Amino acid sequence: MEATKVAILGASGYTGMELVRLLLGHPAAQITAATSRSNAGRRIEEVFPRFSQLPGSQLPFIEPDMEAVVASGATVAFLALPHGAAAQYATELLEKGLRVIDLSADFRLREAATYEDFYGETHPAPDLLTTAVYGLPEVHGEAIAAARLVASPGCYPTSILLPLIPLLREGLIDPATIVANSLSGVSGAGRKADPALLFVECNESMRAYGLPRHRHLSEIEQELSTAAGKSVTITFVPHLIPVNNGICTTTTAMLEGDLASVEHALRSTYENSSFVRLLGTGACPDTKNVTHTNFIDIGWQHDERTGRLLLLSAEDNLGKGAAGQAVQSFNIMTGLPDMTGLGTV
Amino acid sequence: MEATKVAILGASGYTGMELVRLLLGHPAAQITAATSRSNAGRRIEEVFPRFSQLPGSQLPFIEPDMEAVVASGATVAFLALPHGAAAQYATELLEKGLRVIDLSADFRLREAATYEDFYGETHPAPDLLTTAVYGLPEVHGEAIAAARLVASPGCYPTSILLPLIPLLREGLIDPATIVANSLSGVSGAGRKADPALLFVECNESMRAYGLPRHRHLSEIEQELSTAAGKSVTITFVPHLIPVNNGICTTTTAMLEGDLASVEHALRSTYENSSFVRLLGTGACPDTKNVTHTNFIDIGWQHDERTGRLLLLSAEDNLGKGAAGQAVQSFNIMTGLPDMTGLGTV
Amino acid sequence: MEATKVAILGASGYTGMELVRLLLGHPAAQITAATSRSNAGRRIEEVFPRFSQLPGSQLPFIEPDMEAVVASGATVAFLALPHGAAAQYATELLEKGLRVIDLSADFRLREAATYEDFYGETHPAPDLLTTAVYGLPEVHGEAIAAARLVASPGCYPTSILLPLIPLLREGLIDPATIVANSLSGVSGAGRKADPALLFVECNESMRAYGLPRHRHLSEIEQELSTAAGKSVTITFVPHLIPVNNGICTTTTAMLEGDLASVEHALRSTYENSSFVRLLGTGACPDTKNVTHTNFIDIGWQHDERTGRLLLLSAEDNLGKGAAGQAVQSFNIMTGLPDMTGLGTV
Amino acid sequence: MEATKVAILGASGYTGMELVRLLLGHPAAQITAATSRSNAGRRIEEVFPRFSQLPGSQLPFIEPDMEAVVASGATVAFLALPHGAAAQYATELLEKGLRVIDLSADFRLREAATYEDFYGETHPAPDLLTTAVYGLPEVHGEAIAAARLVASPGCYPTSILLPLIPLLREGLIDPATIVANSLSGVSGAGRKADPALLFVECNESMRAYGLPRHRHLSEIEQELSTAAGKSVTITFVPHLIPVNNGICTTTTAMLEGDLASVEHALRSTYENSSFVRLLGTGACPDTKNVTHTNFIDIGWQHDERTGRLLLLSAEDNLGKGAAGQAVQSFNIMTGLPDMTGLGTV
Repeated sequence: MEATKVAILGASGYTGMELVRLLLGHPAAQITAATSRSNAGRRIEEVFPRFSQLPGSQLPFIEPDMEAVVASGATVAFLALPHGAAAQYATELLEKGLRVIDLSADFRLREAATYEDFYGETHPAPDLLTTAVYGLPEVHGEAIAAARLVASPGCYPTSILLPLIPLLREGLIDPATIVANSLSGVSGAGRKADPALLFVECNESMRAYGLPRHRHLSEIEQELSTAAGKSVTITFVPHLIPVNNGICTTTTAMLEGDLASVEHALRSTYENSSFVRLLGTGACPDTKNVTHTNFIDIGWQHDERTGRLLLLSAEDNLGKGAAGQAVQSFNIMTGLPDMTGLGTV
Repeated sequence: MEATKVAILGASGYTGMELVRLLLGHPAAQITAATSRSNAGRRIEEVFPRFSQLPGSQLPFIEPDMEAVVASGATVAFLALPHGAAAQYATELLEKGLRVIDLSADFRLREAATYEDFYGETHPAPDLLTTAVYGLPEVHGEAIAAARLVASPGCYPTSILLPLIPLLREGLIDPATIVANSLSGVSGAGRKADPALLFVECNESMRAYGLPRHRHLSEIEQELSTAAGKSVTITFVPHLIPVNNGICTTTTAMLEGDLASVEHALRSTYENSSFVRLLGTGACPDTKNVTHTNFIDIGWQHDERTGRLLLLSAEDNLGKGAAGQAVQSFNIMTGLPDMTGLGTV
Repeated sequence: MEATKVAILGASGYTGMELVRLLLGHPAAQITAATSRSNAGRRIEEVFPRFSQLPGSQLPFIEPDMEAVVASGATVAFLALPHGAAAQYATELLEKGLRVIDLSADFRLREAATYEDFYGETHPAPDLLTTAVYGLPEVHGEAIAAARLVASPGCYPTSILLPLIPLLREGLIDPATIVANSLSGVSGAGRKADPALLFVECNESMRAYGLPRHRHLSEIEQELSTAAGKSVTITFVPHLIPVNNGICTTTTAMLEGDLASVEHALRSTYENSSFVRLLGTGACPDTKNVTHTNFIDIGWQHDERTGRLLLLSAEDNLGKGAAGQAVQSFNIMTGLPDMTGLGTV
Repeated sequence: MEATKVAILGASGYTGMELVRLLLGHPAAQITAATSRSNAGRRIEEVFPRFSQLPGSQLPFIEPDMEAVVASGATVAFLALPHGAAAQYATELLEKGLRVIDLSADFRLREAATYEDFYGETHPAPDLLTTAVYGLPEVHGEAIAAARLVASPGCYPTSILLPLIPLLREGLIDPATIVANSLSGVSGAGRKADPALLFVECNESMRAYGLPRHRHLSEIEQELSTAAGKSVTITFVPHLIPVNNGICTTTTAMLEGDLASVEHALRSTYENSSFVRLLGTGACPDTKNVTHTNFIDIGWQHDERTGRLLLLSAEDNLGKGAAGQAVQSFNIMTGLPDMTGLGTV
């Protein structure tokens, strides 16, 4: 298997670290450039001692210099950068002929106005919004295969969209009644020296945050609306939980069909999806079964007393919710089997 | 202050341990009997080294022998026993003239049929159901003062009822749209040698459980229905989270009034409640602020996009959700100020 | 009981927070001033929502202005400041007639040269070193009673000194063979926005740090040398462990007497000490029994195969290891019973 | 690469689970039999939902029936059984021609008398003790290659032996002064429904245990004595720490050479060892860098003030401390490169 040369921009945050982990172990990828302003000049293994002595971990981080990235021979670039910064580099890399997998929010929305509404800034590269493919492989797999710019979805959206989309397509739930409660591990907040993210502040603590209008609602509702064929607005309540990794989402909505149709819609949609594990009715997905993997586990249940359907999903926020999903898109873009480099548990 | 002599039955579980902690430190209570089948003959401080050298901690546990409990001089008995067992002892203790604060589910429901429906057993003492007072002091304070049998509510119900009751009374939300998602610390599952509760199984894990019809729904809906003046059925999704103590509940419902009315209803209901802290709109209660206390923190928010009201509450499952609340009822029953023995943080 | 007016300087770190907690609940203390550069103008209950609605928690933080501290009427000042800063304020407060309990390292050493050697700076107020009393109440209780300046010991030293001092005084162990391994909860590292202290970095992590010459060795060896009557040098290895609170220390040394003498030395030294709980031989102290208290639990064991004595101790780094111990000194200085305000578990 | 057929006996504990994980992902092994009394009849993926949908995870557990194990075609058997039980099955499997990698303590000691002394039972198969090879690949690699019975070392011994052996061989430390303090994650205590291992009991807790004569001392001292060429007796203090996985060991001893010799002894011994990462002087190994891997990270430091050498090591108790090490021996026994199936981080 000949390796594709890849670059990782913004490689020293938690998502960047997970990309490094997956791509160091990927049999058909070779990291030729990894950028990090704060760690430029230091080797990957110095910054991440966990990866020490792995082939490729001696590569030094460089400044985010696009000339150097291109010179490294990389043909695919992963961007694990803050929103705003990602758009700027993506533009330049696309011009230079690289394919780009962006893990920021910059290209996930089709409408620049929605971006401005939710992110409070004018979109830095609105022309690219029509080029970008929303990188949810189970939904947009074909478009991803041909894409030059993939906007890889965030962790909350993935955990909410995958259970809901098949049901909205079939009209099996009432979209006006959707309420999603998500629990996130602390790595989802990023690797920033914020006092609220200190061990002592997060340990033995549970709390909601980011209410009532989390930024990720914009992409969630965009994709749900497409699936439903009409505008969908939902309530979304994220919570911060003292685990390192994981998203556990519970979504409720009024059931408008029967449970058998729900099961059929989910099973037929995902029967060929390597990473969606349908646990069936009655099972409660546990994040400990998906951490450090690219799996998302999904269960469902009918609350007959109220008529609601309960949808339960668990994924790793850094895996299927970020880096794993991006590598899954990379596999599709380069014609590799889905599980390549993503098969370990 | 003369001390009331109290007994604790089933004192070696987590709720029992918290009762022991609170009552050892209570300036107007003296533990004269503590029962535990598995620890009979051992001193409190042997079983709970944390309490070693505190006055009263040398008391030995005894078998659950009601004669001995009465002989100890106790006039109030706290029951921290499994449902079923509690009813049996309560009957005997009431006959002997003690007042009983039962922390099990045995006397929380007014209808024996509902008990049978949710607990799968014929109620062991249906005659007492009309005698018992549901021990939520903020709602039934006057009845508690005079009660001979208090059925102290569970941890989930308390966290759901206190935010909702004032709003249902005023008709400010649509009861048919209530969805409650609760996150519980592991002590809520009790001190039993269940492999699913091992450290390694719970740590780095998040999952829903007990779906779709948790037993506590019965008492939650009973009290909500009273407040609403009509039958209320809700969706309730509990989750198990790797913290020792705490309940974090997020409840959503369609708002049928305005936010000012919500605030007014909450503030006027709880203005004299020592243990309800209203954080106001925009604040997200964090369990770390209430662990090992009897406080419940409540916040709220209007999701204008969907018309839903978000109600957020945090309490300690063993505190306001169990032992603290029981001691609060004890204070009311014995004419003490609310905060007696419950003022430390 | 008339309350002594007290000031807390540097009240918004973890030690400061614990001081606030203890002194808000202290029946013979009233906080009249609390300083915090970063939180000046905000009320205590805003910064620490946990303390909300407690009497006294409405007090606003002020800038560290010594005039204002004096004007508040405080007669005792607790200093929870970085070393260096503490010395400066202490000097000023002592001049103005306040008694000072300093929780920093500034006045713990009797020799300015040792300070310079271990802290890398010239001592800022060497004249006060002879005035200061090392605030270990079980060892220097009488001097503390009369002291104007108490240098309250750190968390590691307390856990190492209390088991060792009685044995060194009696010549029961060989001081040249002392090795102390300590495990500390993360709050011991302070409330600073250091990436190494983020939840994700500390959770599921265990590591030694600060080798081979931790600053606290200076005060440990000073006090051990006094007890032994000769110069003592030890090996000390601190480790960072993912718990919020607690120090667990295991100290080994060659036994030079018999185990009965060890037990006698410990029991006779601490028979009147409210906060030292001697668990006896064979018991292993667990930090969970001492967190949020002022207790230190001590066990010991003879490793007959090697001739070593094992000394095991557990305390709360913020309690007996910092704020609790400071309040214990305050009680002694103001003639109160030891346990005043420190009796809750 | 043709796969070797392997059996796992006792596959449903934590070590068994890790063996299943590693061998399901091993490119040159195929699990043909997995035994578990409590789970016989259930598929691997039912018992371990984490492994669901991986090739091979549909295999059902069987009762520990050696005929069935042989019939499965397995030529190598991994035994993750309690001591005592392991010996019995090992004897039978060896007779039937399988090679056995035993992860219990049954064959780690060369002397049956030592076994009886430390384990309190007559050795069940003393004749095999001379056949067995102590499965520490960095020390006994050649013997492992040819072995029919490998006694794979425990987690504590591995973390203590690898840093010490090169130094004892060269006489660089005084063996009489060795003190090892180890911190273990809770999975090291096994997957048993012991109340002391409940989440609530272990979380926010740190404590020593198993003093003063942990069973693993027998194998530690056996191997240290061999390295030193004389009888070595050490002090060993294990502690239980609230992490799932990991061993962090700090060993101290009086240095009898210079630091350069220490570094040379370590580097020359491990220069070709894939899984020993020498971090050098001044570095403190962190368990988070080795969890779920087969690496052991080693650092060292000279405490010049006392003349002691500090040796620091970190490994995963289930990885290099158990299942990973066993698979490493398997690779050696079957002529595979060291890293086969062990290369992921």
